Amino acid sequence: MVVGILGGGQLARMLALAGYPLGLNFIVLDPAPDVCAAPVAEHMQGDYDDQALLAELAQQADIVTYEFENVPAQAVAYLADKVAVYPPPQALAAAQDRLNEKTLFRRLGVDTPDFVAVNSLEELQQAMDQVGWPAVVKTRTQGYDGKGQAILKRPDDLAPAWQSLGGVPAIVEAFVPFAREVSIIAVRSTTAEVVCYPLTENSHRDGVLRLSIARPDDPMQGQAASYAARLMKELDYVGVLALELFQADNRLLANEFAPRVHNSGHWTQDGAATCQFENHLRAVLGLPLGSTDAVGHSAMVNLVGTIPAQADVLVNSHAHLHLYGKAPRPGRKVGHINLCAESRAALEAGLKRVLALAGE
Amino acid sequence: MVVGILGGGQLARMLALAGYPLGLNFIVLDPAPDVCAAPVAEHMQGDYDDQALLAELAQQADIVTYEFENVPAQAVAYLADKVAVYPPPQALAAAQDRLNEKTLFRRLGVDTPDFVAVNSLEELQQAMDQVGWPAVVKTRTQGYDGKGQAILKRPDDLAPAWQSLGGVPAIVEAFVPFAREVSIIAVRSTTAEVVCYPLTENSHRDGVLRLSIARPDDPMQGQAASYAARLMKELDYVGVLALELFQADNRLLANEFAPRVHNSGHWTQDGAATCQFENHLRAVLGLPLGSTDAVGHSAMVNLVGTIPAQADVLVNSHAHLHLYGKAPRPGRKVGHINLCAESRAALEAGLKRVLALAGE
Repeated sequence: MVVGILGGGQLARMLALAGYPLGLNFIVLDPAPDVCAAPVAEHMQGDYDDQALLAELAQQADIVTYEFENVPAQAVAYLADKVAVYPPPQALAAAQDRLNEKTLFRRLGVDTPDFVAVNSLEELQQAMDQVGWPAVVKTRTQGYDGKGQAILKRPDDLAPAWQSLGGVPAIVEAFVPFAREVSIIAVRSTTAEVVCYPLTENSHRDGVLRLSIARPDDPMQGQAASYAARLMKELDYVGVLALELFQADNRLLANEFAPRVHNSGHWTQDGAATCQFENHLRAVLGLPLGSTDAVGHSAMVNLVGTIPAQADVLVNSHAHLHLYGKAPRPGRKVGHINLCAESRAALEAGLKRVLALAGE
Repeated sequence: MVVGILGGGQLARMLALAGYPLGLNFIVLDPAPDVCAAPVAEHMQGDYDDQALLAELAQQADIVTYEFENVPAQAVAYLADKVAVYPPPQALAAAQDRLNEKTLFRRLGVDTPDFVAVNSLEELQQAMDQVGWPAVVKTRTQGYDGKGQAILKRPDDLAPAWQSLGGVPAIVEAFVPFAREVSIIAVRSTTAEVVCYPLTENSHRDGVLRLSIARPDDPMQGQAASYAARLMKELDYVGVLALELFQADNRLLANEFAPRVHNSGHWTQDGAATCQFENHLRAVLGLPLGSTDAVGHSAMVNLVGTIPAQADVLVNSHAHLHLYGKAPRPGRKVGHINLCAESRAALEAGLKRVLALAGE
């Protein structure tokens, strides 16, 4: 069985590593000459909208999935005509546009911060009366890792912010004074079976995820799982989905979802009975889903721009290193460290050392 | 960092899968055209004693290890002149010859069944007075998975047995009426740090391992670990070593050791804090060793000659499938299933279903 993946980055690499034990083989399609999934997958180099390549991929792969959501919708539609593509194209379309995404959340009763669509500086100025200060303006499409957004604190910020985003269609959202950011990693199978991992608490810096801590038995688990289940049912979803949320008081407000395996689910590689990568593959292949039970207490620390000496990481008992085979560059995610412990206290003690190694 | 592996079978495949997260890349040298490590490693096809290939491997790899012990000793010696090779060549030499191996055990105070070296049918006949009936005659070299041996129950068996082994130098051993077969998987680092996994209880059929059950807190753990430590110290060992033992009453008798990762350690992939494959790589690379703690209760069932439907395996909660990418043939190991449970009772209940799937 051959799985095709659009994108050949670290998520594709980790999908492949999790998939070989299931007897799978992998092809990744990626325009970059040197992708980090290449040592563990066949690399088809070319553009995502190269129809000849897409046709070849459809012929060689039994199923196609993707590791990032900015694949052109028409490429996915073209593929989906020829081969099974999961998650379904409508999930990709919803995730690619922040206005569609937030509108969908609202329609499903999934709470969100207040938001207004804006297509000009004038509309942005008018929208501020509705959403209030401070606020965040975001491009509708192509944003990731904090890119494509600007914070608005006072009227003077509006014109430079609008210019910095390039004057493209955007949405402006109320800035939520959140107590914490969390995410729920959910999985839905072809038979509509849904399982969720324990809620994960996330910390970002400069728009990039730095730390995720799994919180088994979190009081907000039920609400987050219910949001994810509504969304996946509506989209007739198959695969892993990550829903990012802000918690303010006892409310969860949906920020965005990713129709794929997610950085905040990497701790499951060492801290759950079945990792998110294997469960994504099980789901898209129509196999029974694996247990999402946490094993002990776990956290993940991203390595951004720097790789500590392997020995300094591995000397920490129960630390697991996951490198992506990438050369370090400032701001580039080059790996992560998972830390697993028997108690929350032991986890926190170990975490201090691991955060220091990651330069946090 | 590039790791070269002599042999490109399932052990090489699983070493590579465990090694990518550490940032490693892999080259396997194997004469077969189609090896199951090929999708996850560069495959150098050629004979183990092809000096040009060995020189190329030494140049491209930062370190070389092996996944099976019947690599020609002179090939390893040639390599070891050019690049670091672990486990050390003297460990390979000791494991390749049953007479040297058992003599070494004796010298180190590691108990063994009675044995006598025999080089002719006449010597075999004489040796029976010493070892008694029944007994097992084994070729000194090249035996694995029950091949190269014959059981001796009465004098009439001697001539056919001798002939079946091809008249090569052999040893004859007393047949031990053992209560169980166990193995200890031990790891020794370049700094002489030694860690052991929990003792594993093994069941064979037709000379092939079928079932391994991890036994944390087994009363024989200390004795087995002490045997392994003595052996590794004597050989100045680096890497994973598997020592197979018979238990008769409260004594452990060493049967043989393998200077590599071992089938009876596969449960560690899902049932230990760090798996044997990662710990082997950590050891040979001079990195700190990972925790060998068991996580819950685990067992491994080999898939021999047959691959059950994936869904039938994965529907069992906490069952993990590990396929090797091999076509099934009678008697061929094509994969294994690891089963993990929170209690020994739950493990045994699940094991019945998994054994049935494997045709056991």
